[in-house]
Formats: sequence, C-alpha cells, structure tokens
Amino acid sequence: MAGQVQDCQLGALLMAIRLKGMNPEETMTLTKEMVASGCVLEWPEEWGGLLVDKHSTGGVGDKVSLPLAPALAACGCKVPMISGRGLGHTGGTLDKLESIPGFSSQQSPEQMLKILNSVGCCIVGQSKNLVPADKIFYEMRDVTATVDSLPLITASIMSKKVSENLSALILDVKFGAAAQSPTIEEAKNLAHSLVNVGVSLGIPTIALITNMDTPIGRCVGNSLEVIEALQCLEGQGPEDLRELVLQTGGYLLWLCGLADSETHGAAKISNVLQDGSALQCFRKMVEAQGVKPEIARTLSSNSKLGEASHSEELTVSKTGTVELIRARPIAEVLNALGAGRKNATDVINHSVGAELLVRVGQHVEKGKTYTM
Amino acid sequence: MAGQVQDCQLGALLMAIRLKGMNPEETMTLTKEMVASGCVLEWPEEWGGLLVDKHSTGGVGDKVSLPLAPALAACGCKVPMISGRGLGHTGGTLDKLESIPGFSSQQSPEQMLKILNSVGCCIVGQSKNLVPADKIFYEMRDVTATVDSLPLITASIMSKKVSENLSALILDVKFGAAAQSPTIEEAKNLAHSLVNVGVSLGIPTIALITNMDTPIGRCVGNSLEVIEALQCLEGQGPEDLRELVLQTGGYLLWLCGLADSETHGAAKISNVLQDGSALQCFRKMVEAQGVKPEIARTLSSNSKLGEASHSEELTVSKTGTVELIRARPIAEVLNALGAGRKNATDVINHSVGAELLVRVGQHVEKGKTYTM
Repeated sequence: MAGQVQDCQLGALLMAIRLKGMNPEETMTLTKEMVASGCVLEWPEEWGGLLVDKHSTGGVGDKVSLPLAPALAACGCKVPMISGRGLGHTGGTLDKLESIPGFSSQQSPEQMLKILNSVGCCIVGQSKNLVPADKIFYEMRDVTATVDSLPLITASIMSKKVSENLSALILDVKFGAAAQSPTIEEAKNLAHSLVNVGVSLGIPTIALITNMDTPIGRCVGNSLEVIEALQCLEGQGPEDLRELVLQTGGYLLWLCGLADSETHGAAKISNVLQDGSALQCFRKMVEAQGVKPEIARTLSSNSKLGEASHSEELTVSKTGTVELIRARPIAEVLNALGAGRKNATDVINHSVGAELLVRVGQHVEKGKTYTM
Repeated sequence: MAGQVQDCQLGALLMAIRLKGMNPEETMTLTKEMVASGCVLEWPEEWGGLLVDKHSTGGVGDKVSLPLAPALAACGCKVPMISGRGLGHTGGTLDKLESIPGFSSQQSPEQMLKILNSVGCCIVGQSKNLVPADKIFYEMRDVTATVDSLPLITASIMSKKVSENLSALILDVKFGAAAQSPTIEEAKNLAHSLVNVGVSLGIPTIALITNMDTPIGRCVGNSLEVIEALQCLEGQGPEDLRELVLQTGGYLLWLCGLADSETHGAAKISNVLQDGSALQCFRKMVEAQGVKPEIARTLSSNSKLGEASHSEELTVSKTGTVELIRARPIAEVLNALGAGRKNATDVINHSVGAELLVRVGQHVEKGKTYTM
C-alpha cells in the first residue's frame, strides 16, 4: 500500500503462489496481512457475539442473501453484509438490489453502524478503506492468469470477511456446471481452506457445499430475483430458496448462540419469514439505504420493479420429462441480453430475466406452454 | 517493447518460467523473439563465415577475452565482441579494459563495423538497439528472484550473441565455488541449453566446461589483469590463461574453417601470440576505441596502468603445501576494497587488485614472503 513493491514483483508473487500453492499457515498469514492493509470495522461492545454474515462463491439465481440478512436481523443478529457485483456468468447481490429504485450500495462504515443500529442489517459494497490490497491483487490476478489459485481465492474472500469483525460466518461453497468449482472435490478443498483461515483468525466458520447445476429458485435476472426474494420474505416462494435461507440462517443462529441447534435456528428463521418481521427488516433496510419511504414501506412481491418491455414465452420443442435445467447457458443468454457484465465497466439492464415455468421431473408436451 | 504488456504480467511470466522451466523449443523461441525486440548487426558479405565470438559465464581473474579477440583477428577472423561489466563477485571485461586511459566501450554498430574493417576486432558494451527486451527482463529478474532460471539465462546470453550475427561461437561455461554454476552438472545443463539454442538458430556453437575454484592466471583486479593479458599477448604469462586462449581460439578457428582441427587452430593462435601480431591487433583495437596513439602503440606488460597507491605483501601464516587458492573470497575482499560493484551504479577503482605469489602445489614456509 506504500507503493514500495514493484508491479513486476507482485506479478511474480502471484504466479509463485499460483504454481507452488500455500500451506494453511501461509494462507492465514497472507489473509491477515491483507486485512492489515486497511481498516477493520468497529462495533459497539454490546453487539459482541451477534455479528454474522454469509458468503456464497456465486451461482445462478442465488438471491439467498436478500431474505437471509433481514431474517437474521429479525432474529436479533447484526448483519454487516458486504457483497459484490456480478462478473461473468454469476450475478451480484448489489446488482439485484439496485433494481429497487433509489437503493444505494455505497455506505461508509459510519453509515453501516447507523443502519445496523436501527435496522440490524445492511447489504453494501466494498468500502475503499477495507482490504485495499485485495483490489490491487484482484486486478493483477485478472491479467496474470492467477485467478484460479486456492490460497489467493481464500485470502481474497476471507480478508474481506475478517475486516467485518464478525462473530460467526457461514460459507456457501458451490460446485457444478455453473459454479466456480466444477467438481465437488474442488469445492471441498476451497471450503476447507476458507474454514481453516476463518477459525485460525478467531471466527467460528462453517461451510456448506451445495450444488449449482440448476438455478436457485425459478427466477434469474436482477429485478425478477428481488421479486422472488420478496416472496420468500412473505413466507412463500420456491422451496429450494427457502431451504437454503433456513439452513444458512439456522447454522448462523446456532454458531452465535441464539439457537440450541441448527434445526432450532432454522425454525427461528422460518418464524420470522412467516410472521412478516423479516420482510419489515428488509423494507427498513432498503429505506435506510436510500429507497423512498413510499416505495420501501409497501415493497412486496406484487411491486412493479423494472418490468421488461418485451417478453416471450418459450414453447416445449419435444415431449418428455425435464431432467435438468442447465443454469450456465441460461445465465449466458441473459448476460448477452444485458443482465450481466462482460467487463467490470459494463452497464446492466435490471429488467432482463427469465422465469423457469417448468420444474425438474415435470412431464412436458411438445408445443405447450406452462405457467408457474 | 510497445509498452502493451503490464509489468505485473512480465513478473508473472518470469516467475512461471522460473518455476515451470521451458523445453528447448520454447527456450529457442523466447531467444528468437528477444533478438527481434531490436536490431541485428549487419556485416559485409565478404566476411561471411569469419565472424566469431566467445562468451564466458564469468570467473575470477577471467581475462581470456583480452588476448583472445586480437589473436583471432590476427588469424583473419572478425570479432564483434560485446561484453559486460562486473556485478557481484565476477569481474567484467569492460571494467578491465577501462583501466587503459581513454578506452571507450561505447561504440555504435557503425563504429563497430569501421573498427572490424580496419582492426578485425572490438570489445564493446551492449548497444541500446541490440536486444532491448533483455534489459527490461534483466532488471525485473533481479528483483523477482528469477535470475537463476536456466531458460532465462540461456535466452539472455544467446539473444545477445545471435544479434551479433555470428558465424561461430564458443562458450566457456564455468563450474565451481566461484562460478555461477556451483556443480559440474549445472554447468553441463547450461552448456547444453546454450549450445542447443545456438545451433537451432543456425550458429555453429561449442561449449567448454571449465573449473572456477581457483582464479585464472595470477592476477585479480582490473588493471593487474590487463597487464597479465598483455603478458599473454607477448607470448608469456601464466600457463592456464594461455591454455584457455589457445583452446577457445583453436576451436573457433576450426569452427569457421580457418583451421583443420582444434589443435591446428590452437597452433595458429600460439603463433600470433609469439610473433607479436596479436599484440599489434590489441594495440590497434584500443587505439580505435579511444586510447591516445602514444599510449596505445607502446602498450606492453611494462606499461603503468592504474598502479595502487598502497600495496601490502601477505606473509605465510603456516608452513605447508598450497592445496587450493579460493577464488571467491579473494574476489569478495577485492570488491569490498573497490574493485567491483555491489550495485550497478557503484564506481569502481581500477587499481585495486591482488597478485597471487604462490601456486597450487607449492611448498610454503611460515613467515616467508614469495615473489612471482
């Protein structure tokens, strides 16, 4: 950060790490030093033990954070969730939330403290003062073929989470055709590496390893995913989404001592989804993050959010049974239509999306259309 | 050279080459592309077949180039010798020659052509237009821990030699305590790599693998080594130096067709050392490279060149037989006294040096001093 290391030295370091790997202690040290490149968030002492967050390695239709953060807040947690934007085929939580008019992901650490105090959760972008070394590394990894390095991925993810000064963390490590890790073995290695660093640095950390061949839920695309997240917050919506929210939330409540077990925690999450208190937290959060009160306070799955100017229903081309809904080609088509970015500076179109009107296992007939 | 590659990418490339190695074809391609980063020297057609050079991987007391270049020129060769400066414990040919007042190693390709035309040999510094990529790589290797990479060493040495547009090349690859390659195996690997690239790029190339535990000759230090080189050019001087000059010169004369065998070539070199024609070439060369005629034309081993203001004779501390004269500590002591550089910008003192007054195998008695 002092500019004393030459760019060619950083490039050489990244390549050496990429080719030689790092042992757990080295990975932990790298993570710690990256955290030390910037500030660490500071919280009131009385929040001790209650600060939780979730990180997903990214999937198609993955809107879990949207209902999860307010559900945890409704259960009494403090959730300083720092999320990213979409790049490549996976979507970004911030892009999704920005389909709500007025929503601002740029919140300073002081604003985060204020929102956590009044609402209990926020979902914001990376602050420039948190892990500035990660930005330098990340841009260099992109051009030096060192993106796919286990220790570098670990240090990048965990340094940002450690800088949030958390009491507990859950990681959702995806594997499959639409995940960063194609095989379950790779996902396990990454999960072990992430958990090891988290625990070494004093944060109780759990990782789930979940499949990402098929999109999560039935909606893909920024504004459609917010609608689906609102369904979940209304106690409705697709079962797989709800299941992931209950599971990740359940573990976190157990880890931070607000539940006796993961199952007990999941039941608590289920309650706040059913009784509307999670939805209330979500509405308050988006209001605190810039959405006008008249929009925020009535936000529901019936709200009109960036509806597409054109929509097309696809008919079944062949009679048979749906065996698989391939997430990656869906994401790639939507991105080509403007839902995602090829380059970090691309502007996205929030209204681009797809609704999956059939389910895996469903019998479909040629020429027919189906509804949700 | 167009500045389109980021420094971090070059650092990553160097580290990848350092850690993964390169096969012979890759090393050859890298060398060829480095040559293509700049100009290649152009020579008159009638010199075809006569252009020769020698490269040594560097040793202590290695002044072989000084008598060799003019001896080859006296035999009818054209020797566009591009040499380097000392860095670390090994001396540099240009530093040695600069103990002759007025000698200038900065000669443009046009000046080199003129000197080769009138004298037959020159010993000059790297021109900025030849292999400019090597300068960029070299500075980066120095700070990225990628100096000791076989393909990078090979490409650096051979790109400069290929850019000289040679008809034949001999390499003196040193091994031992005072060499870049500590073991004979490493020296063999380097020799194979260098010869392979030379031959692949159309230059008949031979490598000698020679020991570098003990200094070459009996003088170490810039001006002292010029005096010893002049002894050699007068048909005198230490046997090991003379032997290396005859051997490397003999092979080159054989390679370029001016001798029927290496032995025949060595005999021809011996002749031009004995009959004074090599010494005449040396005198003409230094005159062509800036030394005043009155100094150049009378240059001999009796000339006064940068005599030390202080000299000290070391007495024998223990009776016994000299088993080894360790080259590296001698070089290190002399460098600390100003004979060499720690950093590329250090100014050196040409008069610092050591004369070895005893030989390996000689019986010495405690308290006595010896003379050459």
